[in-house]
Amino acid sequence: MNFIEQLNNIWKKNNSLVCVGLDPDLSKMPECVKAHQYPIFDFNKAIIDATADLVCAYKPQAAYYAGQNADDQLAMTIDYLKENYSEVPVILDVKRGDIGSTAEMYAKEAFERYQADAVTVNPYMGIDTLKPFLDWSDKGVIILCRTSNPSSAEIQELVADDKEIYKHVAGYANSSWNYNNNVLLVIGATYPAELGEVRNLCPDMPFLVPGVGAQGGDVEQVITNGATADGNGLIINSSRGIIYAGSNEKFADASRQATLALRDMINQYR
Amino acid sequence: MNFIEQLNNIWKKNNSLVCVGLDPDLSKMPECVKAHQYPIFDFNKAIIDATADLVCAYKPQAAYYAGQNADDQLAMTIDYLKENYSEVPVILDVKRGDIGSTAEMYAKEAFERYQADAVTVNPYMGIDTLKPFLDWSDKGVIILCRTSNPSSAEIQELVADDKEIYKHVAGYANSSWNYNNNVLLVIGATYPAELGEVRNLCPDMPFLVPGVGAQGGDVEQVITNGATADGNGLIINSSRGIIYAGSNEKFADASRQATLALRDMINQYR
Repeated sequence: MNFIEQLNNIWKKNNSLVCVGLDPDLSKMPECVKAHQYPIFDFNKAIIDATADLVCAYKPQAAYYAGQNADDQLAMTIDYLKENYSEVPVILDVKRGDIGSTAEMYAKEAFERYQADAVTVNPYMGIDTLKPFLDWSDKGVIILCRTSNPSSAEIQELVADDKEIYKHVAGYANSSWNYNNNVLLVIGATYPAELGEVRNLCPDMPFLVPGVGAQGGDVEQVITNGATADGNGLIINSSRGIIYAGSNEKFADASRQATLALRDMINQYR
Repeated sequence: MNFIEQLNNIWKKNNSLVCVGLDPDLSKMPECVKAHQYPIFDFNKAIIDATADLVCAYKPQAAYYAGQNADDQLAMTIDYLKENYSEVPVILDVKRGDIGSTAEMYAKEAFERYQADAVTVNPYMGIDTLKPFLDWSDKGVIILCRTSNPSSAEIQELVADDKEIYKHVAGYANSSWNYNNNVLLVIGATYPAELGEVRNLCPDMPFLVPGVGAQGGDVEQVITNGATADGNGLIINSSRGIIYAGSNEKFADASRQATLALRDMINQYR
């Protein structure tokens, strides 16, 4: 089963477009977890167990593991997901981009070392830097297009040949880069108009949409502008809004409530 | 001492613009090293000991460590450099790019966990994704501009407001992004005309230039078009051409000869 099929299955099974971003920051975790031998893994595990029937994907952000010397706990987290919730796809958020021979090593990191189902990548260097990922035809390759952060306009909204750079990326993504039908795009919830424009360019492509919750994106506009004709097509990520919903020993219950609330808010507009 | 000062010192001391890319691939290493307990570290150590008086920097490519589950050997390599050759700066080639709170974690990875002196980053997401690196004023932040790979033109050569995207990057890099005077740019040796154009835009900024050697860049044109007025301004990287110069137990001697040859070829045109 390839990544797009995995997604279609889980959207249906869990009736949810919510992706939980596993971005565990030790300094922000509940005190009751901090003293554990593997605090990051235990924190993730509790949140996963509390939310796995409510989501369409988990998205560990590699920086939080790399920056806290916790590569082992990233591996433990993904192993735990594969063993217990294999129907929920895992997106490893790494935003890699490098020349071909180097990108092959990053693809091995994501797909062999960590067993991710999909990976985020950066388009700035062009197709020969994406190909080592795209060649894994069963895996999803999620390319940055119009990102959720304030200064994304500096490069992404420059206009060349009458269209913005992010639309050039969307154009490649919907044609020459998509030779294995495994391309998705990242479009921030904070730019709903642009989300709609890219949906028009790529009617059937799934989008990963960060930026609801802490970053302020509006859920109704995301669905109205971004969903595909069948009401799917979106992986709507929330990280801080879900994983830090509670701050005491009941943090996992709080994350379940936050996930439920987001799922239901999304579903009322589908 | 900040990164630019470190560079100026080592350019002078070693009379060299050569950077050795430490991209160790187990499958390409001499048989005599493969059976070691820490083959990647021992391979790097031998090459470092053979070349440290001939270079201006070392550039470990993070993907080779991440893809081969060898983060510990990356740390060992940089520790070894710091203990024995602290005058030679270490560039951690990671090409990161992510939203602010995440980029802070990547900056911690590069500058705290691994003690790198400089890091490579991707400009596609704009300044708020670069700021967590730029704020480390003693560290170098080396931003992708015109990369050496064949398909770099797909995005980088699109023309907006009468100039190519890579020139927009160079413009930001020489103004608003450079508030701590710690910005450098990546320009591939395979595009010497573009290297000259960016040199005109940024007369004093050091450039990291990959693409000589295996990728085919021409050394004379790189120096003629890319050097600053004083004959410096360049960190010319060679990875495969140096680290795989030999294939038997004398591989480190061969890497020294290859480094010497590249240094002297460069110096004849300065």
